[in-house]
Amino acid sequence: MSETHLLDDMRRARPLVQVITNYVSMDLAANALLALGAAPAMIHAPEEAAQFAMIADALVVNIGTISETFFKGMRAAAAAARTAGKPWVLDPVGAGATRYRDEVVAALLEARPSIIRGNGSEILAVARVAGLSAEAAAPKGVDSLHEAGAAKYAAVALARRLDCVVAVTGAVDLVTDGARVTRIANGAEVMTRVTACGCALSAAVGAFAAATPDRFAAAVAALEAYAIAGEIAAETSAGPGSFRVAFLDILSRLENSDIAARSKTFAEAAFG
Amino acid sequence: MSETHLLDDMRRARPLVQVITNYVSMDLAANALLALGAAPAMIHAPEEAAQFAMIADALVVNIGTISETFFKGMRAAAAAARTAGKPWVLDPVGAGATRYRDEVVAALLEARPSIIRGNGSEILAVARVAGLSAEAAAPKGVDSLHEAGAAKYAAVALARRLDCVVAVTGAVDLVTDGARVTRIANGAEVMTRVTACGCALSAAVGAFAAATPDRFAAAVAALEAYAIAGEIAAETSAGPGSFRVAFLDILSRLENSDIAARSKTFAEAAFG
Amino acid sequence: MSETHLLDDMRRARPLVQVITNYVSMDLAANALLALGAAPAMIHAPEEAAQFAMIADALVVNIGTISETFFKGMRAAAAAARTAGKPWVLDPVGAGATRYRDEVVAALLEARPSIIRGNGSEILAVARVAGLSAEAAAPKGVDSLHEAGAAKYAAVALARRLDCVVAVTGAVDLVTDGARVTRIANGAEVMTRVTACGCALSAAVGAFAAATPDRFAAAVAALEAYAIAGEIAAETSAGPGSFRVAFLDILSRLENSDIAARSKTFAEAAFG
Repeated sequence: MSETHLLDDMRRARPLVQVITNYVSMDLAANALLALGAAPAMIHAPEEAAQFAMIADALVVNIGTISETFFKGMRAAAAAARTAGKPWVLDPVGAGATRYRDEVVAALLEARPSIIRGNGSEILAVARVAGLSAEAAAPKGVDSLHEAGAAKYAAVALARRLDCVVAVTGAVDLVTDGARVTRIANGAEVMTRVTACGCALSAAVGAFAAATPDRFAAAVAALEAYAIAGEIAAETSAGPGSFRVAFLDILSRLENSDIAARSKTFAEAAFG
Repeated sequence: MSETHLLDDMRRARPLVQVITNYVSMDLAANALLALGAAPAMIHAPEEAAQFAMIADALVVNIGTISETFFKGMRAAAAAARTAGKPWVLDPVGAGATRYRDEVVAALLEARPSIIRGNGSEILAVARVAGLSAEAAAPKGVDSLHEAGAAKYAAVALARRLDCVVAVTGAVDLVTDGARVTRIANGAEVMTRVTACGCALSAAVGAFAAATPDRFAAAVAALEAYAIAGEIAAETSAGPGSFRVAFLDILSRLENSDIAARSKTFAEAAFG
Repeated sequence: MSETHLLDDMRRARPLVQVITNYVSMDLAANALLALGAAPAMIHAPEEAAQFAMIADALVVNIGTISETFFKGMRAAAAAARTAGKPWVLDPVGAGATRYRDEVVAALLEARPSIIRGNGSEILAVARVAGLSAEAAAPKGVDSLHEAGAAKYAAVALARRLDCVVAVTGAVDLVTDGARVTRIANGAEVMTRVTACGCALSAAVGAFAAATPDRFAAAVAALEAYAIAGEIAAETSAGPGSFRVAFLDILSRLENSDIAARSKTFAEAAFG
């Protein structure tokens, strides 16, 4: 099911990934990219973000600790990436929590992200900002709107509306391009107790997207590699502190055979 | 002496703690809150900080790497927290070091913090900014003004002036609400060689304050849990790098029995 | 060859090092300084950066995640340090990558850094910004301009032009004051896979420069201590995550005898 060669492809390409992310996750995002074999560049100033986006192989935008300066840099970089045909990933942290975040998300959607990666409630918020009605995003009968599983309808509708890939992460992850839906049931509970794990995952998605034109496959491969590295690291760690250390070690030596042996990735119908 | 049930109360409440802190401490503060069982949210932009403060269960403001943008967000959030009756904690990092910090502290005091947490020299500086005379803050005969112990007079006077709780941390910590004074003699020397340990402690104080209306008890419980986790972690670590890792592990599994077994907390008279 | 007493001198002095650095490296830079025995202060706001530079024993400026606010603080602090005769270190991260970075570097050079620390391609970019012709910076026959070794010509010319010390780090490091050239062949490959290792090194250079008037010797001693700590840490770690932890532990207990036993430092002619 999984295309494990994408990890090797990414490492061989050693993509330069421009990451405009929140202050909390910069350290882990940069270290995760380095451990995976990519080259991070944290460049956000409006004066240079767009110029650099044309040099970089992929762009990752994360609105966690958004402020006006970062927002300007994000818009400029995203527009430049779009124009240059480079993949760019949107991580809409906290979407829906404040009116300001809705405005920020709306503006960033104008630059048409290649991939959106968030948790269930963030993806629902983005779907609403994108103009999808509550009905389209979450038809009646869905029990828990804020579970990754339940956000499936919103994710599929959003992917179709924006012609992009949407990845919803949670206990079980989900990736869709509007036609295909793949679930990934790997991971470890401790990852929810280490800050920036989701943000660094979005950075990893950017690295994989830089190495293959198939953005759906890139997102699936990134989520799978990341979750499996987390699984392995959790087995040898004693809490969130040692987990984070082990996780970076494992990311740096993760092999295709680890992924093949542990993969719990499976496809399902887009609606059904 | 100590009210160890407050750790359980806090974990059960899983408070949402808005943290506007310096860049250096964001990672450790967020990870310490997650390890303790609280939910951190690092949201500082002036466009949204106040709106979010009304959603959050507590607010923590730390001026370590203060700048105008953060300052605006802090003022707005602190005023909103005050209005909404949410507890908010001020960590006046570097108070007294520059004129700018004095101005920042003076403005933040207008929003009346629930708890102020700093080292001895920071608390003395805040007392001066609050208009307490040198005599009131530190009567003659005090040997070392900048030790946590010697800052007792300033802390008590400040707590009375502002009707808040003041926590002074050092080799021995001190908490006062102006009437009561409690000292906490736990901790580990290595904590002074790991950046952001104090800042993350202030975040922990916010989490505990969200879970009990008694802010004095909340501050005591937070300082005690934190110092004891530090003690335990120091016993198994080989330096500041491994300490930080072990500390987060220990925070995530600290139990009441650990606190009861190790507590060196004792009350004393406010003046005497 | 190496002057290992400088580590002890620095620890005894416990210098207060003001670090205006990028968001990614603040945590590691502060922790590395604390582990080494120095006292970090991350203070960058234009409102206070210059005032604090006059209190601090050394200033370190790193342009990694440069923005206008930080740039203002950097210029003010660097000018104040220069006027006060305090050593200041410039780390020109990403110099040459965008036009904005060239402008930032040009402005900072006006405050005449005491020491410039960068990789080969950054030093070549700074040499260009400083007005050195391509011919002066890299005479014909140099094979790989972007290797630390090949950047020797640019480093020597830059040190002469600006009357400063230039440190070029790579597989083998190089330090020059325009007359002397010393190479340091210690270190570990894993350091290239941990973000902010170079930035934290620049902070360490600032600490050493605060403790001796001989800035060339300070830079050599800092690079040597740092690389040897890295070597030792790499021997006991399983990847970039555990390396970083071990590295801070080792920095905190590095001794002169470790340096003496492992030093691969040697002098060579400035040109030849």
